[in-house]
Amino acid sequence: VFQNPRGTRDFTSEEMKKRNSLEESIKKVFQNYGYKEIETPTFENLDLFTAKSGEGIISEIYSFKDKGDRELALRPELTAPVMRFYVEKLQMEPKPLKLFYFGNCYRYDRPQKGRYREFKQAGCELIGTSTPEAIAELISMAYKIIENTGLKDMKLKIGNLKILSSIFEKINLKKDQIEYIIPLIDKELFDDLYNALQEFGLDNKAITTFINLLETEDLNQIKKFAGSESEEEINRFEKIIDLVKKTFKIKNFKVTLGIVRGLDYYTGTVFEIEAPSLGAEKQICGGGEYQLVSLFGGRETDTSGFAIGFDRVLLALETEGYSFSENYTEAFVIPVTEDMKNKAIEITEKLRKSNIVTDQELNDRSMSKSLKYANSINAKKVIIVGPDEMKEKKVTVKDMITGKQKQIEIGKILEIF
Amino acid sequence: VFQNPRGTRDFTSEEMKKRNSLEESIKKVFQNYGYKEIETPTFENLDLFTAKSGEGIISEIYSFKDKGDRELALRPELTAPVMRFYVEKLQMEPKPLKLFYFGNCYRYDRPQKGRYREFKQAGCELIGTSTPEAIAELISMAYKIIENTGLKDMKLKIGNLKILSSIFEKINLKKDQIEYIIPLIDKELFDDLYNALQEFGLDNKAITTFINLLETEDLNQIKKFAGSESEEEINRFEKIIDLVKKTFKIKNFKVTLGIVRGLDYYTGTVFEIEAPSLGAEKQICGGGEYQLVSLFGGRETDTSGFAIGFDRVLLALETEGYSFSENYTEAFVIPVTEDMKNKAIEITEKLRKSNIVTDQELNDRSMSKSLKYANSINAKKVIIVGPDEMKEKKVTVKDMITGKQKQIEIGKILEIF
Repeated sequence: VFQNPRGTRDFTSEEMKKRNSLEESIKKVFQNYGYKEIETPTFENLDLFTAKSGEGIISEIYSFKDKGDRELALRPELTAPVMRFYVEKLQMEPKPLKLFYFGNCYRYDRPQKGRYREFKQAGCELIGTSTPEAIAELISMAYKIIENTGLKDMKLKIGNLKILSSIFEKINLKKDQIEYIIPLIDKELFDDLYNALQEFGLDNKAITTFINLLETEDLNQIKKFAGSESEEEINRFEKIIDLVKKTFKIKNFKVTLGIVRGLDYYTGTVFEIEAPSLGAEKQICGGGEYQLVSLFGGRETDTSGFAIGFDRVLLALETEGYSFSENYTEAFVIPVTEDMKNKAIEITEKLRKSNIVTDQELNDRSMSKSLKYANSINAKKVIIVGPDEMKEKKVTVKDMITGKQKQIEIGKILEIF
Repeated sequence: VFQNPRGTRDFTSEEMKKRNSLEESIKKVFQNYGYKEIETPTFENLDLFTAKSGEGIISEIYSFKDKGDRELALRPELTAPVMRFYVEKLQMEPKPLKLFYFGNCYRYDRPQKGRYREFKQAGCELIGTSTPEAIAELISMAYKIIENTGLKDMKLKIGNLKILSSIFEKINLKKDQIEYIIPLIDKELFDDLYNALQEFGLDNKAITTFINLLETEDLNQIKKFAGSESEEEINRFEKIIDLVKKTFKIKNFKVTLGIVRGLDYYTGTVFEIEAPSLGAEKQICGGGEYQLVSLFGGRETDTSGFAIGFDRVLLALETEGYSFSENYTEAFVIPVTEDMKNKAIEITEKLRKSNIVTDQELNDRSMSKSLKYANSINAKKVIIVGPDEMKEKKVTVKDMITGKQKQIEIGKILEIF
């Protein structure tokens, strides 16, 4: 027996109903914010991803040679492809350019709950602006997208990598030292962080001050430590936070310098949204201000964006017991006798033409088996086409929820829907 | 500069608008006919496709080894994956099972107009029935899907491979001879066909009779030639044709035995829809009755289905000059002064919350540049937030189509949309 490849999934119609409804919900908010949908290919030239993330990424992705010996890769993420698209074809578009997308991505990863080898991402890129209003709008939109899905338990955290970098500089950390502590900061392993910084030769007071800075929400404390070199960025960051809170009216978020996303890629404000119910794989959204355009050969311009882990949001909604609507069939038409079959088809077609989801008995089954099938496909009404009723131009309509039956003139059949 | 891989495409927001509207149109008809959407992975184990199509297919597709040395392939079509899904997980579902899908497929093919290395298919499978009503409904639905897209110039052709095979047998053609003439029949190269059959030793009268049978719409003529062995299938075929014409009321189609689709895969009635405007790549839909379930290890059951070349339908619509609706922004909000910025954001957010597609000036530009940008994103109305009007709790609304301006109370702003 054949199976789907490890780490991939088949989706039943019940699952697709949920996925489509989640996609609609996310898309609606992107559109309301003036974002326009685009699409890029499922695979790209491998060097696009190594240019962005280094050769190390090859071990984590699906890369292969095509028959023309081109090195290709199934995309592991969508920002690089969208930036490539922008540089290649969209640089002349009026700015800001607001782009959103849905797309499957691929990672050669150990499959586990919330981690698949083929997974879906939703995301957006905002190209050509970095005013505080623009960044605050981006963060607020991310929050509202998740909120609009119906998810209750979510945490937004906003940080800033430019400020964090200047603090690293202030305490004289070297590049390899920074690389070592980044994962410790990310996982909030402050004991390990303490030990590491001690080994790097920092005194206890400096370490405590530093760890406090990672945890504080008080921007003045940060400003005081970081000094005048960072003042402009801290003021800008303060403005963004202020807009998010007071103007975009997002109440529920935490400011923390402890957000560390790809340091050589992100350049300023960064943010993450978590669904705590998901445990280890709790991050459902991440993004911020970044620079990639010149790396891909374009004229540098301000860029920011975020990606949403579609599958994880769905998992989080299911964990919270969110009630998705179910598949159903509005009408199911059954001919009582052989010579009623054509009449039954005509009624079926009439309903379909009026956009009523309608099915009909296609297997010549008995009435009881036919009704059982109608029930199994969640039919709301069954229309029974019998010869006696037909003489009076009527059909019998059975309401599958109440079980009640009544006769209805064929000419008035659309009225019951 | 990085480029998208050869034979793949990037889609702009204008193109996505068309693609989404076409997808919606196709989906609507599938759903009205009681079909439910499913999805399978983008890649499968390679042996799924060689089992269906033979080793020869490897040279035409993207196949590769993953890091666990598994032989994988980007799917070249969707029937095999859906049948694999059915056998693995859906065999116990009530029958008939009506499944539809959209998915990208991949072929390592020479790129040309209407032929891409990554292309989109829509399609469906009908599992567990083969009554004339079921097959007639399937064919009629395919026709109505294409009709519903807005395409004007289309041709439906219906044939039957079981009857054609019995005629091959009747004139004593061997397997390799049949394989040789199949492409000639497919391309309607009747002179070449004539020569080939002459070489196979058929006399002129037999050849003429045979070629007539490929062209005739007269089922009685076919019945007379094919004899009693085919009578049952011809009667069934006649019933299907009759239902399509008289009950499903499809007027515009041609019956022809000249439709030859994968002889060892399709088993009975087959059909194709063409868009003549596309020239060589004119086939936009193809399907019929087939057998695959037992090949994939399942308990054999009647199956039929069809696939639609999504990109070709779109190309055909564009060729006919079909007028797709365009992307637009309902409102664009501009603050006149720095201290009106927060107020502008609040108005923007209020409109978005009411599902009005709204954007705002995010780049601190002058009024004239801002209006130019609003125009470039196809904004219908511009809302100007100025300090004088604000004192009276009003804003200025400029209609971008008529150019007219008027002042409106902020509390009544939703009423103008």
